[in-house]
Amino acid sequence: MEHLVEKTVAKKQIFAGKVIDLYVEEVLLPNGKTSKREIVKHPGAVAIIAVTYEGKIVLVRQYRKAMDRVLVEIPAGKLEKGEAPIATARRELEEETGYKCETLRHLTSFYTSPGFADEIVHLYIAENLSKLENAASLDEDEFVDVLEVTLEEALQLVKEQQIYDAKTAYAIQYLQLQQMLGEKHE
Amino acid sequence: MEHLVEKTVAKKQIFAGKVIDLYVEEVLLPNGKTSKREIVKHPGAVAIIAVTYEGKIVLVRQYRKAMDRVLVEIPAGKLEKGEAPIATARRELEEETGYKCETLRHLTSFYTSPGFADEIVHLYIAENLSKLENAASLDEDEFVDVLEVTLEEALQLVKEQQIYDAKTAYAIQYLQLQQMLGEKHE
Repeated sequence: MEHLVEKTVAKKQIFAGKVIDLYVEEVLLPNGKTSKREIVKHPGAVAIIAVTYEGKIVLVRQYRKAMDRVLVEIPAGKLEKGEAPIATARRELEEETGYKCETLRHLTSFYTSPGFADEIVHLYIAENLSKLENAASLDEDEFVDVLEVTLEEALQLVKEQQIYDAKTAYAIQYLQLQQMLGEKHE
Repeated sequence: MEHLVEKTVAKKQIFAGKVIDLYVEEVLLPNGKTSKREIVKHPGAVAIIAVTYEGKIVLVRQYRKAMDRVLVEIPAGKLEKGEAPIATARRELEEETGYKCETLRHLTSFYTSPGFADEIVHLYIAENLSKLENAASLDEDEFVDVLEVTLEEALQLVKEQQIYDAKTAYAIQYLQLQQMLGEKHE
């Protein structure tokens, strides 16, 4: 793949934040010319497809400053330093929804914006949910509503553009696919 | 939704780049406290699920500096100022793959990283492809290999972690779902 690789010849840190860092890298292109790449560094995140015994999907409604709008998403959160992704998934599920789970399984991982950021989302599926007796607390700057919806209701939220992010769109499609596979095997 | 909304009380631009801008906003939380939000502004992008007459998916292999690795993705590209997303989709398909399409249909749109960026991807499906006689040229700092793979081969690339980004994972799931719906109706 050497004919595609861009070598960094200079790197400048523009910003170090509490969530993201920003770098500008000067790169040597495969054709010998140079260009600049703007790169956001992110600690990575988890997201959880949580399904109740009644077959409902647990979602959170949350205000997102970047878009200045309220979105409905599957529960998700950033990796803490030194925390295994599966532990983050368990913690975020408990904090954001008040559910603990008996079964938690890694489904897939993907980069969300490879053109400018290294954020990776590790996607888990949580089953055998039960309500925590003492609800875990959210981060002090985090405010969410919890929704439990059927797949049909989730698809309606997609239509209404309340569900509008990649990980949640993927999650809903995953559940549609599972439902169809189930029907096929019945 | 007022109980979720964060009001901006101060906003500082940290960086203005050729692709992204970075802002730090001080926000008033629903509980009356304040916090800071790091926000990346992005022009938005399109991505294209392109399917050949033989039923193969057209993919591009590309080096991504943010992850320092080569990824296989569906064709995609940033919106140019004043350009309608469907025109961007047609242009990027031609530039990146050398295919023009007779049919181009908007499928869905989603935010890729709502926690820290406003990037939106408009996803299109392109069918009735034919090779351009005179290949359109890539951006001068863009280098890609074009692949044409079956759905089964795409799933193998997922397993090998060469396909590892959200829009492409969504696209493959979409095609799986379409295939299953087709089988169901046969």
